[in-house]
Parts: sequence; structure tokens; C-alpha cells
Amino acid sequence: MASAGVSPAAIIQSVEWIGQTGGHLRLLDQTLLPGSLTYLDCHDVEQLWEAIKSLRVRGAPAIGIAAAYGVCLGAGKAINDTLEETSRLALAAVDRLATSRPTAVNLFWALERLQRLVKLTPPNQTGSELRMRLLLEAQAIQDEDRHMCRAIGEHGASLIPNEATLITHCNAGGLATAAYGTALSVMFSCQDHGKRLSVFVDETRPLWQGSRLTAWELMQRQIPATIICDSMAGHVMRSQKVTAVIVGADRITANGDVANKIGTYSLAVLAHHHGIPFYVAAPSSSFDLTLASGDQIPIEQRDAKEITEPGGIRVAPKGAQVFNPAFDVTPASLVTALITERGIIQPVTTETVARMLNNDDSV
Amino acid sequence: MASAGVSPAAIIQSVEWIGQTGGHLRLLDQTLLPGSLTYLDCHDVEQLWEAIKSLRVRGAPAIGIAAAYGVCLGAGKAINDTLEETSRLALAAVDRLATSRPTAVNLFWALERLQRLVKLTPPNQTGSELRMRLLLEAQAIQDEDRHMCRAIGEHGASLIPNEATLITHCNAGGLATAAYGTALSVMFSCQDHGKRLSVFVDETRPLWQGSRLTAWELMQRQIPATIICDSMAGHVMRSQKVTAVIVGADRITANGDVANKIGTYSLAVLAHHHGIPFYVAAPSSSFDLTLASGDQIPIEQRDAKEITEPGGIRVAPKGAQVFNPAFDVTPASLVTALITERGIIQPVTTETVARMLNNDDSV
Repeated sequence: MASAGVSPAAIIQSVEWIGQTGGHLRLLDQTLLPGSLTYLDCHDVEQLWEAIKSLRVRGAPAIGIAAAYGVCLGAGKAINDTLEETSRLALAAVDRLATSRPTAVNLFWALERLQRLVKLTPPNQTGSELRMRLLLEAQAIQDEDRHMCRAIGEHGASLIPNEATLITHCNAGGLATAAYGTALSVMFSCQDHGKRLSVFVDETRPLWQGSRLTAWELMQRQIPATIICDSMAGHVMRSQKVTAVIVGADRITANGDVANKIGTYSLAVLAHHHGIPFYVAAPSSSFDLTLASGDQIPIEQRDAKEITEPGGIRVAPKGAQVFNPAFDVTPASLVTALITERGIIQPVTTETVARMLNNDDSV
Repeated sequence: MASAGVSPAAIIQSVEWIGQTGGHLRLLDQTLLPGSLTYLDCHDVEQLWEAIKSLRVRGAPAIGIAAAYGVCLGAGKAINDTLEETSRLALAAVDRLATSRPTAVNLFWALERLQRLVKLTPPNQTGSELRMRLLLEAQAIQDEDRHMCRAIGEHGASLIPNEATLITHCNAGGLATAAYGTALSVMFSCQDHGKRLSVFVDETRPLWQGSRLTAWELMQRQIPATIICDSMAGHVMRSQKVTAVIVGADRITANGDVANKIGTYSLAVLAHHHGIPFYVAAPSSSFDLTLASGDQIPIEQRDAKEITEPGGIRVAPKGAQVFNPAFDVTPASLVTALITERGIIQPVTTETVARMLNNDDSV
């Protein structure tokens, strides 16, 4: 168990607040990993907006945490220590950051928590008092996420036998969260319990979060990781014994449909065809019970150059047309179980999701 | 119909013999497309071996044609115009070139044709006479391939309705063959017959034959092409109306199992799940009736750097483990039809394959 707290992957934080209410946000620039461990200090909302948009900070829970601190950055710009000005700047930060990325619901969930706090602040408080409350709330979101991830890992580990061979996609690791991750937290918990694993890691085009980030996190923990191109997962399932697929989620709707990194749906279909369990690990903050099904989730379209000019190298004709959705939706029918911090949802239906999510109203 | 003969894509030849029996082989270096149209002149067998190994010439039929000319290159090195020396050098070229790549059967099929010719040459012939016979045989292979590809296109076009949306993988175009291609020949024939198409092109990691070569060939013909990452095909099938998937093949066994570029199998499973026809277009030279099923096809493993350092840019941690099979096997049960120059094989079974392939013993 102790190893979870001391390995480099656990120590490296993707999001960290430096200082007190007048402080700033330090992000690990994930676009430069694994070649370089470079931190980016964000002193204003626009810097953070750009960092979220360009995936310097990424992963649904980490985006939520960063955005919460972003509201603190906004509120910190008040010149007069009035509640009015501080509130106005905080709410402007909420509005601005909500436009950074459309799919992951944790972003909106975190911003709403801070917005609610602003709106519920008694009128007799000062700007400084509001700033302190905002910072404590952002820190609470981060702390809760750490605990949620750890609990996800423990619940998920109960589903994975010893000597398992897993496939994962994108990065649902410590980098995508406050710590531990979601899908990777399950692997880390398995390791803590002495279960031996090996993991096939989809490289995850177009931005290689699998080969750049997930393989790196697993190697830090000495969990055997083998990188494959995304198109190889079917061949791996057919030619090797694969125990399960585990991925994270950017948004889960009331019926259990899952929006996650593009390619997740293909992987779910392949797992279904091969009779391999397909698990999605996510905290309750990734659930959006206001949407009945995944068809209603907005899917972010990203720049064509991510596909045509990876790393600045042109691999397509000039003028080529490109389709670059960042996410896809996996229907609940293909999800064997949802692994949350509250427990395992299996089978995945509107009823079982509601039962688990309404179990506890702390979130 | 005329357009097929005059468009730039038809004029550009991936493999061309320059001169007479003392001539050399000119290859379009496909690793440099679409950025640069650079030709490589091969004057000896080793140069060609490297070019095949490193995919400067690629595509099962094109490899077969190039290898046939490679035997001519070998035979051309005879210092004395004796049948004995010329035969020995030709057979040495056959042996050497057979080690270049293991999966595509056209390579072995073409080399065997040249080898048979050497062994059946009457002992009273001169070295020069053998060299002329070898060159004529290589040219015949190239000419036959051109005709086969055209016939594949015509047969395949009968399966595709007007206003079709297709998905293809890797490059089964004119670059992969003497001309027209296999899967792309079907699209070109559709166009010749006035059918409107749009094509989603899998980029085809790790070497981007889809975005580099297929998108380029389709754009040359003004066929609307949209590049996607390989992992997006499932999302495209689920969110858009896809008429069919068409791919080429590197080897097809007696029961109709298909070895083709890695990722083909995943695409076939996805097509099956969505009820979308999955077509494989290939000449009879890609069939290997000596193998009962696809499990017996040797699968080439390639360098890890293709995955970890695309274009020289590192996208994975140093020391990361990689699995890089160049091909996978799609079982006949997932193939709706095989499109050959002799006609369409549907359903795909050992019996229907045998019936079509034994129909005509010219090959």
C-alpha cells in the first residue's frame, strides 16, 4: 500500500495551487511529456483557458480541478476588496472557462460548485473572505478527487484477477486527476494488492496520450506496459488472452452511456465481439444526470492539423479534408460495469446508475 | 472511362523498368509521398531488397512486380554470357528477395514464376536469351496486374450503389499495384460509371499509408476523401451512414481468411457489428491455396521506432515496450465478399474460393 504514496508518478502533480488566495496555479505541461517535465505557472484566467484548450492540462477530473482554481485566479484580480467586484470577476472566470472545452462534464460540475458558492455568499462578507472560500472550495474539489480516485481503484481491483492482461486507451491516470487516476488507479490498486498485471496501451491518436502519458505512468510504477497502435487492439484481443479493457470517461449520462476519448467506442465493440469485459472507471463528478443519453453530449471537434501534421511533420496531402472528433460515445449496452468511488454499477442501466448516484448526496 | 487513363494518378507508376535486358528498375519512393515525388533507380538486387524492406515500394501486387524485375537485375550481372552463370544469379536473386518481407504472397508468387522459367529454360539457350525471357515474364506480370486491377474495379463497382459512403484502410491503390489498385480500382470504376462516392480514409498508423497515399490518390481523381484516425472508424460507422468498407489483401488463404494491413481485422469486426458489408479486393495472385487458413500466415513484426518515434519525434518514454505487427488476419466469416479479377466470391468459403480460383488455370 505504501508504494502508492511514494512512487514518482504519485508525487508528480498535474495541478497544484501555489501560495494563498493571492497565489497562482502551477500545471505540469502534459503536451511536453514524456520528453520534458515542464511546469507552467498560470497567473490569469486567459493563460489557463489556453492551457485547457491546448491540452497542457487534460483529463476530465484534472480539468475540473484546474478550472476551480481558475475561478480563484479570476477573483484574485479584484483591485478593491469588495464582495461585488470579487464576485463579478469570479463569475466572469466561470463563464470564460466554461467555453474552453465542451465534452468533459467535470469542468462544468466544478465551475458550478464555485458559482453556487459565489451566489450563496452572504452580502456582509468582504472580497478577501470570498477569495478564501473559493480557494478552500477548489482545494476541497482536489482533495475529494484524490480520495475518489483511490476508492475507484479499490472497488475496481475487486474485478481484476491476478495475472491479468488489460487494454487501456488514452490516459486515465494520475495526470488526468488529482492523483492515482481512474482506470489506472484500478491497476495501481491491483499492484498494491500483489496482483500481477500486464497492460496493452493504445497509443491514442491523434495526440498520443496513451504512449506519451499512460505508458510513462505505468513504467514509473513498474507495471509491464506494451504500446500498440490503436488499430492493433482487435488483433491483440484475437491473438492473446485479454482479461479486460478499462478506460476512463469524460461524461456519463443518466442511462450509462459514456463519452470518452475517440476510439473508446471501437474498443468497446471489439471487446464485446471477443467476450471481454469492458469497464469504465470514473468519479461521480463525471456523471451528468441531466442528460438522458449519450446522443445529447456535445462532441468537441479539433484542429485538422492534429491529424495531418503530427509533431509538425506533414503526413497528408495539402488541402486534405479531415474529420477530427475528440470523443465518441459508447452505449451503456457495451459497458460491462461502471466503476465509481461509491461502488460498482453492474449491469449498467438508468436504474442502477440512479441508485448508485443518489445513494449519497455529498456530491 | 477515358479519365482512368489520363489522370495523374494513373500516369504515375510505382514500378517501371527502364531500358532493355541491361536496364534497371525505377521505383517511386513511397516513403516520401505526398511531400515529394522522388524516384529511386535500383541497379542491383540489394538496393531493391532494401527498398522493399523499408517500404519504398509497397503493396502486395507492386512488391511482386518489383521482385520479378529484381530477378532481371540479378541476371543482368552475369559477366559471361552463359546460361549457367545467368541462371545462378537469377536464382540467387530469387532467394535473396524472398527474404525481404514475409506476409504478402504476391512476392513469392512472382518469384516462383521467374524461378520456374529459369529451371525450364532449355540448356541450349544463352544467358542473353534467358535474360530476355526473364524480362518478358516480369513485364507480363506487370501487364497482367494492370488488367487484373481494372477487372477487379469493374466487378467491384457492381456492388457499390450511387451516393455511397465508403471506408478504406491503408493503400490498395495504383501505388500498390501496376495501376488502378484493388480497393481503389473499385472506386475509380464507380467514378467512371458516374457513381458519386465519398470515402473515409483511415490514416493507417504507424506508417500513414492511408493519409499519405490513399488520400492523395483519391484527391488526384477528385473523389471526396476525408482522413480519419484509425480509432475513429467505429464512431463514423455509428454516427454516419456508411455503405461499405473496402480494403485490399496481402494474402488470402484457401478458406478465404485475409491477411492485410494491421487494423483491417478491427475494421471488419466494426463493420460486422454495424451490419455494413466488408469487401476485400485482390487479384488471384494474392491467394495462397497452399494454406488452409489464416492462422498459418506468417505475420511480419516491424521496428518499434515506427510507433515510438514517428517522423523522428519521440512520442513514448525511452525503453517503452512495443508490439508492432504489420498485418492481421480477418477470418472469412467477417468478409462479405472477395472481389477478384475473375468475379465476386460470395459467400466466402473454401468451396467458393476454390471454384473461382480453379475456374481458369492461366495463373
